[in-house]
Amino acid sequence: MGRLRVESLSLSLDGFGAGPNQDLKNPLGLNGLSIMEWFFPTHTFNKMIGKPDGTTGIDNKFASRGFEGIGANIMGRNMFGPIRGPWKDEEWKGWWGPNPPYHSPVFVLTHHTRKPLELEGGNIFYFVTDGIESALKQAQKAAGGKDIRLNGGISVIRQYLSKGLVDYMHLAVSPKLLGAGENLFAGLDLVKLGYSVKENVFGENATHVILGKS
Amino acid sequence: MGRLRVESLSLSLDGFGAGPNQDLKNPLGLNGLSIMEWFFPTHTFNKMIGKPDGTTGIDNKFASRGFEGIGANIMGRNMFGPIRGPWKDEEWKGWWGPNPPYHSPVFVLTHHTRKPLELEGGNIFYFVTDGIESALKQAQKAAGGKDIRLNGGISVIRQYLSKGLVDYMHLAVSPKLLGAGENLFAGLDLVKLGYSVKENVFGENATHVILGKS
Repeated sequence: MGRLRVESLSLSLDGFGAGPNQDLKNPLGLNGLSIMEWFFPTHTFNKMIGKPDGTTGIDNKFASRGFEGIGANIMGRNMFGPIRGPWKDEEWKGWWGPNPPYHSPVFVLTHHTRKPLELEGGNIFYFVTDGIESALKQAQKAAGGKDIRLNGGISVIRQYLSKGLVDYMHLAVSPKLLGAGENLFAGLDLVKLGYSVKENVFGENATHVILGKS
Repeated sequence: MGRLRVESLSLSLDGFGAGPNQDLKNPLGLNGLSIMEWFFPTHTFNKMIGKPDGTTGIDNKFASRGFEGIGANIMGRNMFGPIRGPWKDEEWKGWWGPNPPYHSPVFVLTHHTRKPLELEGGNIFYFVTDGIESALKQAQKAAGGKDIRLNGGISVIRQYLSKGLVDYMHLAVSPKLLGAGENLFAGLDLVKLGYSVKENVFGENATHVILGKS
């Protein structure tokens, strides 16, 4: 059975994965993008937006790893789009244009049913309304033995962590403060949940930390 | 006027400066000592315990800096000793033996009056009962223009931070999880309080981060 992996989760020094006051203009909240500054210069990000250049050092190695061996994805509804409540129509097709970067089935956690959405490049979005464990089971089945990438946001990752369902977590910690917003660690005792630090590597613009089950 | 400096504050990846269940045997709580592992190999620590050896790299540079230009110290009562409530007698003289490593006046925050305690090596402990701002004023006067080192614990540092009184803070972040205990950041919006990251240096066994007023 494939592992459930969190990859390239950008965090501030004070543990926030998104800043305060998230809205359409600032999907990651106030100064939230600052914690992703390690990612934007990498070749992996440049390739995602159709550019050939980008750095190929340690930061890029960790960014690139996150796409390897992935057979399915899970994400929260707020990561799929800004719409809240029931889906009014099927107009919204994600942030990523006609060919999203997932290239495999994506299971979107929501409380509101919606028909599957098929886009180019092997991207099919399934809308799961019966909880995180059901989404994981469906993703594992779809992944056919490959791993599942748990994309976020922070709230969804915390839900999976709190049930000990995450097998592998890569954090990219930036030397920035956000002060408020969505905190990964608050009230979550990762030691009690069986996690420990497996690897710690200093990259060019972030510290890369791998957490796994002890 | 001398600055108020926090130096060599050891933190876990999840923001804890001490683990859960602090007691006499584990003054830093469960696994709390693990976040100080960067410090013990340094020449600075070895010198403190009367040994000539120790590493002289980046970790040591930051450990050593913490003692430079200091004219007075502030600490919480729990850092001075394990006794709670009123002082029964004057028997307890700190954890450090006859010649503590401060070599300057130390202002101990407590709710219970006690006469000043003079030990060898220029160590005089004053017991301050009228609050953190009074302790700072007294320390500034005693320091004669030099800086004041705010030694901890976490609770005392958080009190000074929440009033914006800390001028400089050196964090040594270790790739460890504590899961629970005393968290430096929880509920404290350092951005709102005017702090930002001034320096970030990867040491041998910890990441050294300098916070200051923006």
